[in-house]
Amino acid sequence: MTLNASRQRLLGPDSLKPLNEGFEVIGAFNPGAVRVDKETVLLVRVAEKPLAVRSGFVGLPRVVSGGSVSVDWTPEVELDLRDKRVVRRKADGIARLTSLSHLRVFRRREGGSGWTPGPALLPETSAEEYGIEDPRITTIDGLHWITYVAVSRHGAATALASTTDFVAFERHGVIFPPENKDVVLFPRMIEGMHVALHRPTTRTDFCRPEIWLARSPDLLHWGQHQPILCGLNPWESERVGAGPPPIQVDEGWLVIYHGCGPSQGSEEVGAYCAGAALLDLNDPTRIVSRSVQPTMRPAVEFERNGFVPNVVFPTGLIDHGARLSVYYGAADTAVGLADLSRDELLSSLN
Amino acid sequence: MTLNASRQRLLGPDSLKPLNEGFEVIGAFNPGAVRVDKETVLLVRVAEKPLAVRSGFVGLPRVVSGGSVSVDWTPEVELDLRDKRVVRRKADGIARLTSLSHLRVFRRREGGSGWTPGPALLPETSAEEYGIEDPRITTIDGLHWITYVAVSRHGAATALASTTDFVAFERHGVIFPPENKDVVLFPRMIEGMHVALHRPTTRTDFCRPEIWLARSPDLLHWGQHQPILCGLNPWESERVGAGPPPIQVDEGWLVIYHGCGPSQGSEEVGAYCAGAALLDLNDPTRIVSRSVQPTMRPAVEFERNGFVPNVVFPTGLIDHGARLSVYYGAADTAVGLADLSRDELLSSLN
Repeated sequence: MTLNASRQRLLGPDSLKPLNEGFEVIGAFNPGAVRVDKETVLLVRVAEKPLAVRSGFVGLPRVVSGGSVSVDWTPEVELDLRDKRVVRRKADGIARLTSLSHLRVFRRREGGSGWTPGPALLPETSAEEYGIEDPRITTIDGLHWITYVAVSRHGAATALASTTDFVAFERHGVIFPPENKDVVLFPRMIEGMHVALHRPTTRTDFCRPEIWLARSPDLLHWGQHQPILCGLNPWESERVGAGPPPIQVDEGWLVIYHGCGPSQGSEEVGAYCAGAALLDLNDPTRIVSRSVQPTMRPAVEFERNGFVPNVVFPTGLIDHGARLSVYYGAADTAVGLADLSRDELLSSLN
Repeated sequence: MTLNASRQRLLGPDSLKPLNEGFEVIGAFNPGAVRVDKETVLLVRVAEKPLAVRSGFVGLPRVVSGGSVSVDWTPEVELDLRDKRVVRRKADGIARLTSLSHLRVFRRREGGSGWTPGPALLPETSAEEYGIEDPRITTIDGLHWITYVAVSRHGAATALASTTDFVAFERHGVIFPPENKDVVLFPRMIEGMHVALHRPTTRTDFCRPEIWLARSPDLLHWGQHQPILCGLNPWESERVGAGPPPIQVDEGWLVIYHGCGPSQGSEEVGAYCAGAALLDLNDPTRIVSRSVQPTMRPAVEFERNGFVPNVVFPTGLIDHGARLSVYYGAADTAVGLADLSRDELLSSLN
């Protein structure tokens, strides 16, 4: 069932200035979230787009060597523009992103009301040429591990970074090759192995995109891949992907995920809703129960209107026990916070 | 340049009887190859198709639990039949294979002329529901490792098996999640890590499919993914994928790969040719030289005509020093053997 969670808009494009000269911020969304001492730390995806307009052209940004940003002005007539996020050359179907994303730290002290922007993690390597996106944070033995999407001319892969302080970041390379997004790490090993959920997306559709589970001895090398969850219900029939990293509850592993349904009318992209699943504590490939109806649907204004309308895309979760703070991207534009009752969420699963 | 290799057809559908009752063998092709003592051992992909014909229907085979084979008879009008290998439901684009493949051992003693069929490795696990395909064999420290494509309703992934004798096989699960094919293992570790080439195929085309390199501590868990080779020339512009496992030569790692060009006329699939690349011995992500023209094009009758016309798809290589025996799939139907001069091949690379 859809829960009546209180929802608020925390941050948006208005919350910060562009880092790239001649660009505007079009989205601050899809945040990783972690609690460090008495502070909440968000790592927010910030999407920037060239300010300049050239009639009949689309400006496609990318990072060139040395980290500076260049814009490829491409004739509109050569592009399929139906998906505003990803345009495709008509001649060969090759995709480019219309915005360039980086990750930005925001902090809020307990009881504080304002978010203080901090350091940025900028796209830098050749695997990050078209930007870095959608971070998830898992703290393991005191070290914060960040899985994020790295997009380049070689595809959309998932890379790994780590930090102790959200000031300095260490990169660990691509851990899931293209096309793979929505990678989340479990907060502890299970039977001596690290565990991740991931969401490969294939050219040949033997199914709609599904959530897979993989295991690793060291967080860097992954194997033992098994599919665990596909979209069964209309709201999740087109694709699913893990949201925030799973949390351990008495009943098992609770994972909030997103589902996307079929597009409606003239929209290229269907609505993104949030659902949840409970995985067996010792064998997390086993789904104990899951949402039949979405836990959260795009409902309020900032979720329904934005760069991509009708998107609720959870990416961060802070576990307060009975209450769960779910941080999510809204309409690929803003950061939202939903306050959920853990028990209500668990009892909504079938 | 295209080499004038002697080429012969070794095996085909006529070489063996179907293993499944009510099926016919439509292809014996894409063989892994290894030399064991004085014997050449091939592990051949054998594709079988239901014999029965029901007017207006297509029979789509799959393995059901317990290992028996079932056929889903599907109305032709519901299917997109342009690609004879993979049909798609018109309603949702979901793919099914028209044949079911397993792997079959064939042996030939030195100086012998005939191939003796041996044990079969049959599709068995849920990841293998639609068959197992295109094995490559790498011998590491005396153990034969087999990478093969496992196709199921969850996609086309690459799995790993091992054997000491090509009689009993041990499965090691999915090592590269969908969609990933053309995985080959290097015959020794480089800087303390196992190395593989793989070929992810993505839904969102930021590029045509490329060959990537990955590393592993244990052959089971893979990371450090880096793209290394994309199709630059017309004959390889649509996709590339590693062929047989690389061999070490004085100049570096020699890898034969396949390239597919654009489809011509009414064909759904372009021609598959063979090319080669030389990778740096210590840093195999670095391409030292590569084919500009294909090394082998489909030329003789059994390569030009078959289930998929115009396919030369190398998958096995036995290194005799100055001469290389390249075993390949021809037209998705037969096994071919080409005898190449190593020096001629190396000097053809630019």
